[in-house]
Parts: sequence; structure tokens; C-alpha cells
Amino acid sequence: MSKKYQVVGIGNAVVDVLSHVEDEFLVKNGIEKGIMTLIDLERAAAIYEKIGPSIEISGGSAANTIAGLAQLGARTAYVSKVKDDQLGAIFTHDMRAQGATYEVPLADAGHEAETGRCMVMVSPDAERSMNTYLGVSEFLTPDDIDEAMMAEADWIYLEGYRFDGPESHAAFAKAIAACKGAGGRVSLTLSDPFCVERHRDAFRDMIRDHVDLLFCNEHEMRAMYEDEDLSVALRLAADEVDTVACTVGADGAYIWRDGIEVHAPADPARIVDVTGAGDLFAAGFFYGELNGYDTLTTGRMGCVAAGEIISHIGARPEADLKALFAKYELI
Amino acid sequence: MSKKYQVVGIGNAVVDVLSHVEDEFLVKNGIEKGIMTLIDLERAAAIYEKIGPSIEISGGSAANTIAGLAQLGARTAYVSKVKDDQLGAIFTHDMRAQGATYEVPLADAGHEAETGRCMVMVSPDAERSMNTYLGVSEFLTPDDIDEAMMAEADWIYLEGYRFDGPESHAAFAKAIAACKGAGGRVSLTLSDPFCVERHRDAFRDMIRDHVDLLFCNEHEMRAMYEDEDLSVALRLAADEVDTVACTVGADGAYIWRDGIEVHAPADPARIVDVTGAGDLFAAGFFYGELNGYDTLTTGRMGCVAAGEIISHIGARPEADLKALFAKYELI
Repeated sequence: MSKKYQVVGIGNAVVDVLSHVEDEFLVKNGIEKGIMTLIDLERAAAIYEKIGPSIEISGGSAANTIAGLAQLGARTAYVSKVKDDQLGAIFTHDMRAQGATYEVPLADAGHEAETGRCMVMVSPDAERSMNTYLGVSEFLTPDDIDEAMMAEADWIYLEGYRFDGPESHAAFAKAIAACKGAGGRVSLTLSDPFCVERHRDAFRDMIRDHVDLLFCNEHEMRAMYEDEDLSVALRLAADEVDTVACTVGADGAYIWRDGIEVHAPADPARIVDVTGAGDLFAAGFFYGELNGYDTLTTGRMGCVAAGEIISHIGARPEADLKALFAKYELI
Repeated sequence: MSKKYQVVGIGNAVVDVLSHVEDEFLVKNGIEKGIMTLIDLERAAAIYEKIGPSIEISGGSAANTIAGLAQLGARTAYVSKVKDDQLGAIFTHDMRAQGATYEVPLADAGHEAETGRCMVMVSPDAERSMNTYLGVSEFLTPDDIDEAMMAEADWIYLEGYRFDGPESHAAFAKAIAACKGAGGRVSLTLSDPFCVERHRDAFRDMIRDHVDLLFCNEHEMRAMYEDEDLSVALRLAADEVDTVACTVGADGAYIWRDGIEVHAPADPARIVDVTGAGDLFAAGFFYGELNGYDTLTTGRMGCVAAGEIISHIGARPEADLKALFAKYELI
């Protein structure tokens, strides 16, 4: 009998605040290009005052993946904390409207932190630099993990960014135990090379002991295994995990499974904003995985979903992903 | 000596909540297609629950016009009420970040209404249907009108939608008296044919007694002068106002000035979302008016700015409008 959920994601719930900036703006304001930097509310307010007119779209790495999977018809749930405020209502609406279960109790209106937000600053070359105020999503604790939900999941999908939260390691451990105890499997995304630097040992322990499917990009993979040679790093990862799916930008993705490497090429795309590329790669890849497609097709599904997301502003899919899979003759 | 402001807009401050819907959704939920309908918070919540994942972008008719003018480098200010909440902060940021002065005191956090929002439901044919919860923007009173600011304006720009507010007639009267008393001029946009039906007499009195420049579209013009023949309605308007600028969709705009009619053609465009077309027409037209261009060029500037806004989701300009004017050899 199939379980209630195919994938349950756990990550940082944030609303993205998207704006266009020149590279000069990043330099002048000490914002590191291409990566995610955590900031406090004061710094968030200071930067927000300087950026141009913005657009608000629900985001969050694992949340984007779950939204993509829900749009593809998978049975999904999402776990993270937002507050009982207007941005929390927006995030909650968008997650449920996409078809995902999202039932984590709201942080009380009296909580000193607000719903998290991520200032996504898109450069003319489509690269994004993210400054994230985690807000209440930082306070995800083991209490927020519903063990019954984890036991009802074929897969749980853990967002590496959440390693920055003080109590989230314990929350992850609780989720993993409940999921694996009921025969489920565990996937992890490394999220960001600097996040890997901050938590390499914790990541490594989790990968070795619990992870069945590892998502990353080339920079995160190199940081994780401390080897500039991607193929070396990939082999090290492949020794520890059943399946490793590593994106390599315009070159698509390399997937290691059962000792075999498969290269899934990406399609040429007009790149508007790379935000969410890895998140939607994971969504497409999971779709193939859940539905028993071969490794190459599964990887290609990831690439096609990623290609959709980089063709427009925002990290939630606008086009019908299944129609795109059909267009590329993957289904 | 030039005045501090070239255009001061007064209207409804709302954050747009953009989603894509099928026409069937509109029928099923009793939403009238193509027009703006006022709704209360309860109805807003009920509809929000039914629409799909959304994007939030600052909107508001006159606010869009002022944002466009500010992007074009005009000296602008905006007057309307938002609350001290997250959506109010978003609206305020976007207006100021575009370069407009926006200093109206926030409604207190304890106010029972919230910052206004407009659910913009875009159909596959790019037509938009709007359901607006005015929130605190409904409570604009004469106290919110700074007479010194109005006296420092070459033009004030009044949003017809604001006629729905109980005390806004008095606020408009105060603004007009202060502006005209200091030698300024008054422009009005009719906003919506049903809004015209609701307030025809009040509109008519204001047009006759105070308006120097009238913006409208063909449907609003017909409703205003109760004549199905647009050319008849336009002549009636032209007898009452110095300049009438009436948009006619893909046909561009007709401008009546000093007894002469000028047709400004529109350019073929890929239409994604018509939200804000009239608002940006007004921005482009004002740019021509403020800088002394001839009537045809001024009308064409309106059409080019409107063409930009309908080519993407949202009613705030994304492209550089001045660069577009140059591309079309208008400047």
C-alpha cells in the first residue's frame, strides 16, 4: 500500500523579495554575489531601504521543491514555521494552493521574530545573491516534527540551510528516525557551499549514516569533500550514498547510482533569474524517482524543471512542468 | 520658477495579488470579468483561499502612474493611506524606491482595517478582473491632504476609484482648491465604467468645474456621457475640458485638445496582462505634457508606456521607459 505522502520537505519558510541590482550595488553594500548570507532584521531593513521596487513571491529552497512536486501531482507535505502575520498568510496560501499539505502551527503574533524573508538580488547576468532574514523559521524545533507524518512519508527531503538553526539538528534527527523506522528514505540538499563550510562535519555524519539521495551543485560538492576535482569529490560521495545528483549549471547534472555515472544534459535556455534552479532540479528528479523512470530520464526531468524556473523571475514554477516533460519526450 | 512637484497623485494604495485563473473560475465564483469590484475583508479571504499561488506587487491605479512618472525622472509625490503592517511597508518601500515622495502618516497598527489589496485575476486572454479590499485606503480624509504640497504641484492627478470613499470627495475638494489657488492644474482618471455609473453626477460636476486634463478609456467615456457613440461622447467631454485623452485598446488613443482630435496609434504587442495599461498610458502622456511635446508625440508616449506594462505581469514598469521612448524615436 502506498504511503500518504510521497515526499515531505523540511526547510526554511521564507517569502522572496525580488529586485534587480547592478553588480556595483553588491560591492558597495558588502553583499557576496551568488551565495546565501544570513542577516538579522536590522540589516534586512537597512538593505531593503536601498534596493529598488520589488516583487514578493513565496520561496524557500525545500518549499520550492515541494511546490514543484505538488504541481506535478505528487502527494507532498511541507514542514517549517511562519508567523501569524501577513507574510505568513501569503506563504501558507501559496503552499496549500499548489496542493501541498502544510499544517505546522503558526508562531504566535506576539513572537519577537517575523515570518522569514529572503532578499533575492538579481544581477544583469541572471545570477542571484541572497540575503536571508530567517525570522521564525529559525525556531523549528523537534516539537514541530509530527512523527506520524514522517512515518507516512516514502521520502523526507531535508534542506541543508536548516543546519543553521540551533534546534533543527535535533528536529532533523527526530524526522529521520520516524521516517526510517517506518521504512521511508531520506534525501538531503546541501543548499550552499558556505553553509557546507559552516556545518561540514554534521552534514558528513548525516550523509554517511542516513542519506539515501543527495542533491547538490558542483560548488557544494567540492566544499563538502574538500577536493577541487569534481569527479574525485563525486566518487567520494557515491561511496557513501545510494544516489548522488549533482547539478553543473549549463552542463546539466551528473548522477551517480550503483557505481555508475550518468550525465543528464541541460537544454539551452534564456536565463532570466537562476533562483530556484537547484530546487526545481530536485522536484523534477524526484518525479522521475517516484515514478520509476530510468536514471537518465530522471536526471533530464530535473534539468527540464530547472530550465523552466530560470526562464523567469521567481523560484516557483509558472509553466505546466508535466507538459514540458511531454514536450521533451520524457513522459 | 518651477514647482517642487510636477505631479502629485491621490488614489487607493493597494498591493496587487496576482494569479492566473480560467474564465470558468470567474463564473463559478461570481466575479465580473474585466472590471474592478469592491469587496470586504471576509469576501477577500474567501476568494484568496480559492485562487492559486500568487505574486504580490505594489499596485493602485494612480500609484502606478506616479511610479511610472518617477521612473521617467519626473518630480512626483503620492497621497494615500496604508497601515503600519507588512503590506504597508511593502507599498511604502516600492513607492519611495521608485523615487516618488510618499509621506502620508501610516494608519495605526490598531486600526481595524488592514493595508488595502487587490486580487488581480488574469484570464488566458490577458484580461484582468479585479476584486479590491480597500482597507485603510478607504479612510483618506481631508486631514490627509497637505495643502502646502498641493500648492507646490504643477498638476494633481485624481483617481476616480477614490470617489467610492465617503470622505474622499471632501479630500479631493481640498486638494483642488489648494492646487488651483496656487496656479496648478487638475487631472482626473475615470478609472472604471461601473465606478462612473456609481458617481456620474459627482464626476460630471468635477469635470465641468475643475478638470483640465481628463484620462479615460472608451468604456468609461461612454458611461460618463451616456452615449454609445464614442465620438459623440468625446465631443461632449472636449466641450468641458481642455484636454481629453481616451484610450481605445489596441487602437491606441484619441486626444481632444483645443477643438482638434489627434489619433495616437498603439504598437502591436504581446499581451500578457492588461493590468495597469491605462495607468501607464497616463504616465507616458504626462511625460510628454510636462516636457512640452506635441499632442501626437505625447499620446504616443502614453501608448508606448502602456505597451510596456501589458507585456508582463504586474502594473509597475520593468523596462526603462525613456529607453523605449528613444527606441520609438519619440525623444
